[in-house]
Amino acid sequence: MIKERLAALRNMMKRERWDAVVVPGSDPHSSEDVPSRWMLRQYMSGFTGSYGDIVVTQEHAGLWTDTRFFIQFAKELAGTEYVLHKLRVPEAEPYPDWMVRTLPNGCRVGIDGTCMSVAEVEHLKEKLSGINGTVVNKPDYINELWPDRPETPNDPIFVLSETYTGRSTADKLSWLRNELSSRNCNSMMLSSLDEIAWLLNIRSNDILFTPVTISYLLVETDKATLYTNLAKVVPEVEKFFRENGIVAKPYEEAIDAFNSLPSDARLLMDGRTMNFAMFSKGAEVLNDRLVDGISPVILEKALKNDVEIAGFRKAYLKDGIAQTKFFKWLEETLASGACPTEMDAADKMASLRREQENYLEESFAPITAIGENAALPHYQPTHEVCSTIVPKGLYLLDSGGQYLEGTTDITRTVPVGPLTELERIDYTLVLKGTIGLSTAIFPKGTRGANIDILARIPLWKAYRNFGHGTGHGVGHVLCCHEGPQDLRQNVYDQAMHARMITSVEPGLYREGMHGVRHENMILCVEKGENEFGNWLGFETLTCTYIDPSPCVPELMTDEEKAWLNNYNRSVYTRLLPWLSEDEKLWLRSKTIDNELPVPTPTDDKWNDWD
Amino acid sequence: MIKERLAALRNMMKRERWDAVVVPGSDPHSSEDVPSRWMLRQYMSGFTGSYGDIVVTQEHAGLWTDTRFFIQFAKELAGTEYVLHKLRVPEAEPYPDWMVRTLPNGCRVGIDGTCMSVAEVEHLKEKLSGINGTVVNKPDYINELWPDRPETPNDPIFVLSETYTGRSTADKLSWLRNELSSRNCNSMMLSSLDEIAWLLNIRSNDILFTPVTISYLLVETDKATLYTNLAKVVPEVEKFFRENGIVAKPYEEAIDAFNSLPSDARLLMDGRTMNFAMFSKGAEVLNDRLVDGISPVILEKALKNDVEIAGFRKAYLKDGIAQTKFFKWLEETLASGACPTEMDAADKMASLRREQENYLEESFAPITAIGENAALPHYQPTHEVCSTIVPKGLYLLDSGGQYLEGTTDITRTVPVGPLTELERIDYTLVLKGTIGLSTAIFPKGTRGANIDILARIPLWKAYRNFGHGTGHGVGHVLCCHEGPQDLRQNVYDQAMHARMITSVEPGLYREGMHGVRHENMILCVEKGENEFGNWLGFETLTCTYIDPSPCVPELMTDEEKAWLNNYNRSVYTRLLPWLSEDEKLWLRSKTIDNELPVPTPTDDKWNDWD
Repeated sequence: MIKERLAALRNMMKRERWDAVVVPGSDPHSSEDVPSRWMLRQYMSGFTGSYGDIVVTQEHAGLWTDTRFFIQFAKELAGTEYVLHKLRVPEAEPYPDWMVRTLPNGCRVGIDGTCMSVAEVEHLKEKLSGINGTVVNKPDYINELWPDRPETPNDPIFVLSETYTGRSTADKLSWLRNELSSRNCNSMMLSSLDEIAWLLNIRSNDILFTPVTISYLLVETDKATLYTNLAKVVPEVEKFFRENGIVAKPYEEAIDAFNSLPSDARLLMDGRTMNFAMFSKGAEVLNDRLVDGISPVILEKALKNDVEIAGFRKAYLKDGIAQTKFFKWLEETLASGACPTEMDAADKMASLRREQENYLEESFAPITAIGENAALPHYQPTHEVCSTIVPKGLYLLDSGGQYLEGTTDITRTVPVGPLTELERIDYTLVLKGTIGLSTAIFPKGTRGANIDILARIPLWKAYRNFGHGTGHGVGHVLCCHEGPQDLRQNVYDQAMHARMITSVEPGLYREGMHGVRHENMILCVEKGENEFGNWLGFETLTCTYIDPSPCVPELMTDEEKAWLNNYNRSVYTRLLPWLSEDEKLWLRSKTIDNELPVPTPTDDKWNDWD
Repeated sequence: MIKERLAALRNMMKRERWDAVVVPGSDPHSSEDVPSRWMLRQYMSGFTGSYGDIVVTQEHAGLWTDTRFFIQFAKELAGTEYVLHKLRVPEAEPYPDWMVRTLPNGCRVGIDGTCMSVAEVEHLKEKLSGINGTVVNKPDYINELWPDRPETPNDPIFVLSETYTGRSTADKLSWLRNELSSRNCNSMMLSSLDEIAWLLNIRSNDILFTPVTISYLLVETDKATLYTNLAKVVPEVEKFFRENGIVAKPYEEAIDAFNSLPSDARLLMDGRTMNFAMFSKGAEVLNDRLVDGISPVILEKALKNDVEIAGFRKAYLKDGIAQTKFFKWLEETLASGACPTEMDAADKMASLRREQENYLEESFAPITAIGENAALPHYQPTHEVCSTIVPKGLYLLDSGGQYLEGTTDITRTVPVGPLTELERIDYTLVLKGTIGLSTAIFPKGTRGANIDILARIPLWKAYRNFGHGTGHGVGHVLCCHEGPQDLRQNVYDQAMHARMITSVEPGLYREGMHGVRHENMILCVEKGENEFGNWLGFETLTCTYIDPSPCVPELMTDEEKAWLNNYNRSVYTRLLPWLSEDEKLWLRSKTIDNELPVPTPTDDKWNDWD
């Protein structure tokens, strides 16, 4: 089947006089999870990994991907003519360089510019200019090759009311228009689905795990136009749109939007996220009336308002209830001698979240991993292939839910049987990192890169480290990963601001042995002002106990022990009203009855995470 | 006198048809301390501050400087027509903006391009283009206005032998030529005096505190040309130059160097440090055969070799001897009822350093400050105006020396009488910062901005901070401040490398009360490799005791106490052979006999600073 598809593609290439074609792995909205309509790469190759680009010539079919997916490539593309081009290895040759080396002078390279970023295409163009090559943009060239290409979903849009968002659509639009005006613009074209959803207070089910609406949005001074599948605009949404000066038009017409703008239009687009086809069309029509700048929505969306913050607290309370039930179930199931699989456990977790009010769906594909599986950075068990949880070592569950009140993302690593000394030490060191960053105090202007080390230094002092970022922003009933803030080592000039919500999730992974990660969600809060500055700190939102029993107390300071005891005590107290007698007793045994002895009296200042 | 000088300047401006002139505060080599020949700003205004630019028009004479110098401006320029233009205040208007607001359309602005950076002039040009203004570069226009302008110094150059540098001039030149070749260049013009001194292994006394030679250096494949005051090239240096293929030419001829380059020359210049006049002349002559790139010498110079590192250790040992004698003298002088002034103390310190073998000079103007004076960020006492050291509170001494073996820079804050509780707490918290950063372990690739917080977090957790960087690189018998590494919050993408030597100097300053700073010099060292990465850490080079008596033990962890005890014990042991019986006893009372009680046994891993 792949063979036939490649043959058809090559026929088209001959007709178009393309020496090579790029089959991208993204969608037009730089979504983290790509909707089925844009799974071009998968259609053309069968490769289901979340990262990779394909380049096809008459003689060659190659897939460029990184270390995470080498094994998956071998499994999924065996028997096809696809060749793996390794990225993130010392000898890596990205596909533009490969093209320069192998394509003839004056070559023509076909692309679908709707699924590539501006930077990506500009880079390709620059590379090809060295061999007098050109890039030919043919949006949706895949249509003629993919007869049953899925349409965009037509699930209805729903309005997320002010009860949950805390801010009306009218207010948000008015804010944006002011922002545009301050940048000497009067209109803006948006393509990031979470920005559009946040701005209009709308949600939908177009992408798994992320309740957004596939669309473009054009905001002008007197109206806003949402380009989307019109079937999604059910009557009550249409009414809501009318009240807010929003017009819905077919998704496909977005590309023509620039032509009907008034002659005095000065339009803002964010070239970092807008796809190449749309951006270059705008540049062509508007010339110097197109302003390329960072979308003001990104930062504004990250600064959660009081209602959103209260919602997040509620969502984490619900998560805490569901997780308590889950870990009790897991312990009792194992004690009864039964051994659920990793997917059984994930299903159980999802079903317990589903019991909570206002639950929508999972917020990402859970990572459910026993023992050495937890050491695989991108372990993705399936119902067909996954391990059985046996009562030995550590079990790691990274999961989350979408509730109408907020989006959750939590990782707990729990002992399910006897632990090795190394498991205990690693568990403790990672926890010290979580505590170290969660209790940070820092002046305004401090960036993620400045404080990230607080989650790492206990590991570093023991010559251990983890290879991923320490934390990411999270959307409100939106993407589980959102910017602009970040907790990682990379030097990136974005200050942490009060009202940002970020995960803190240090880990440690030992191949063939075990994996540990302790992930909480922390809210950045103001801590007052004095002669030395304006101070910020964090409040932990996550409300699920952290098991103290694997901890090696000698590796912890009294302050760290006190933090853990206080945290668990607070979790217990807050969850109490929603638990059965059995559950209360069980949680008590994990928290209050399980405290680490602290020789000195608990210092009150460590209580301020709550 | 200033009046007459301004009148003469304005006459020249009329003749040149300049609407405004810039009198810069820098020299052609972006030196931190400007040689007297280039004190144009001081000559024209009387202002001796280390930062500021003058702009003169027929109607106006203004000096642009920042908060540090507002009081100095008022004192030194009283009675002149100079107006202060404040920088680093909210309403600041830099002089290019001021020009755009006040100068006529089509204006001509005169500059001396030898004393301005490329970036500065480009910025000015861009601003002025808004009013069709032009910049006219007239190098050394000051000559006709300053009849007795000092020449560059003619103190002889001396060769710093391989015994001290550990690497021959021939080897360094050969290394640079390889570097140039790898960048597809065959020549380089250098202007940074410390880069030239390092590369040729030469030193001189042209600038106070920094033993460099005022010069330009042109390196070609077969020869190198040093443009300097020929009187400095004494016979033995001439012989050394001949042996190394170095030719000396008059300083003034440097600007013509580009004209005599072969036609295949591709020349590297670092536009970030090269002055505008030289850079633009190169660009004019060479066109696209001029390559603007970061000088490879900067990083190479920062990676100290074994001989340099051994030299630094020796220099800090000498400093430790001199400092022990100094603090003993201070304590005994105060005990005798005498009260030396701050400058008496600084003089004593310098004279004790002078007693050490191979001492050259101080490495910077010492900061000697009692009590509240130590809270002033740029306190510069003079013999005429300084305070008396009374036996109360804390005394801070930040001083250093140039030895043939290395350059030192150390700050100690010592109690000279009863302390307040706040002084003790601040002293302790700052010390925790020094220890925290000094004991860091981190993987290769980590930047200063990533680890800087380790020197701040103990202060931040108590809502305190300091407003300067935490640490700077230091040259080998060269500048006391050198790049490229840095320990500060600013996001700057320079990794710490093994063999870099950097200061760690957190502080705390309370206006009207006291100031604390504990500064050590730390050498970045390799700590091995394992499955989690390649590890780096620090070794403390400074060998002067840190007084434990002001410490509040309850604020310190056992590990911090053990570090301090071990550090002082090692200082005592290492200095012993060079001290008199009296001095030994005294130092013993400050170190071994003065240890902080540590309940748990000392953990060996904390010993590894030595």
